[in-house]
Amino acid sequence: MEKILARYPDHKFIGEEDTHKNNNVTKELTDAPTWIIDPIDGTSNFIKQIPHVSVSIGLSIKKQIVLGVVNNPAQNKLYTAKLGQGAFCNGKPIHVSSCEHLNDANVAYEVCLLHAPKIRNKHIKRIYHVGSNARRLLAYSAVVDSLCMVAAGNLDAFHIEDMYPWDCAAGYLLIREAGGVVTHPYGGLFDIMKPDLICAGTETLRAEIEHLIRKADQEKHVGAE
Amino acid sequence: MEKILARYPDHKFIGEEDTHKNNNVTKELTDAPTWIIDPIDGTSNFIKQIPHVSVSIGLSIKKQIVLGVVNNPAQNKLYTAKLGQGAFCNGKPIHVSSCEHLNDANVAYEVCLLHAPKIRNKHIKRIYHVGSNARRLLAYSAVVDSLCMVAAGNLDAFHIEDMYPWDCAAGYLLIREAGGVVTHPYGGLFDIMKPDLICAGTETLRAEIEHLIRKADQEKHVGAE
Repeated sequence: MEKILARYPDHKFIGEEDTHKNNNVTKELTDAPTWIIDPIDGTSNFIKQIPHVSVSIGLSIKKQIVLGVVNNPAQNKLYTAKLGQGAFCNGKPIHVSSCEHLNDANVAYEVCLLHAPKIRNKHIKRIYHVGSNARRLLAYSAVVDSLCMVAAGNLDAFHIEDMYPWDCAAGYLLIREAGGVVTHPYGGLFDIMKPDLICAGTETLRAEIEHLIRKADQEKHVGAE
Repeated sequence: MEKILARYPDHKFIGEEDTHKNNNVTKELTDAPTWIIDPIDGTSNFIKQIPHVSVSIGLSIKKQIVLGVVNNPAQNKLYTAKLGQGAFCNGKPIHVSSCEHLNDANVAYEVCLLHAPKIRNKHIKRIYHVGSNARRLLAYSAVVDSLCMVAAGNLDAFHIEDMYPWDCAAGYLLIREAGGVVTHPYGGLFDIMKPDLICAGTETLRAEIEHLIRKADQEKHVGAE
């Protein structure tokens, strides 16, 4: 941040770190060039030496993400994307998977959200429906790494809600530049400042997950149709 | 198997591979020296290049697991244990975590079991209760690697049911030799031929998970107390 501000004094920052002393740190996204940063995503994994940990840096200009860089040092992977110029891992082009059907799909979900009482019931119903229909449901407790795994085709889809801009800014661009789709869970446009999302390699798969999430949200009890 | 049989013609094998032509391949565990083998655990991860994949080899003599070897080539980790002689990763001693409380614990669960209709409802109730009380719930779709992560202290606990002997033989010994506890989910002795289990770094944490599993199993609906 110091180095960027020395060269570009008008740049802004949005991030997880508590840096109230810096006037360039903001909570609102403006048209100004804004760096959206998560110094460590997957802190719990970092502490436990589980290799799903990332540094995530996105750059927004005129409210559009134009640059995304993610480093996963434990797996020695550096993901990079520039708007309109493709996505890369360690300099090699990456592409999302071509999986079109949920029963063939590896899907990641943040199961750890069950820990939060306010959102627990929403997520357990969604986990039930998505998990019952997917080939595999994975949970890494690592939003940034999960997004990168979708961009690189290791995962076919990922759904997340109740997260923060710094979790998703770089990963969003990586997936888009790798040929994937990212929308609001109910199908609207993705909003980086409230980054609830479904992402997938194909629109068919994304739509199938959206359908199940809507179905889950209409139930009183899990599995009560 | 060929090399072992050339030297030890009376040794038996239990494994996932379909090797009916070999008379030494058995489905029942006897007192004979028996190699319990999973050539690839985490096949779905292997296909998708997700680094939670293992080769697992256990040796049972007089129905006791005396040797366990697991290789995770994607993470360059070789786990080894001999009965009574400790557990190691790449030659260095490993130890389970000292975590005693579920609200501090990273716990793994096979969420992909929701895909199987016959056992779906049992597992969604357990996921709800364990996930609501744990610090983090992870799901790697990799039984062997999850057991190794408990042995090495990366995970604090893991629960699995409806699995096979070759998933658990080596991992069971690794956890015991690393100082951990492994029991049946309802607290009885672990049975390698029906390897339902809770494993944890401490007995306190294991007992807390058992309590929640019993609670979940008594419910009709998720969260209906």
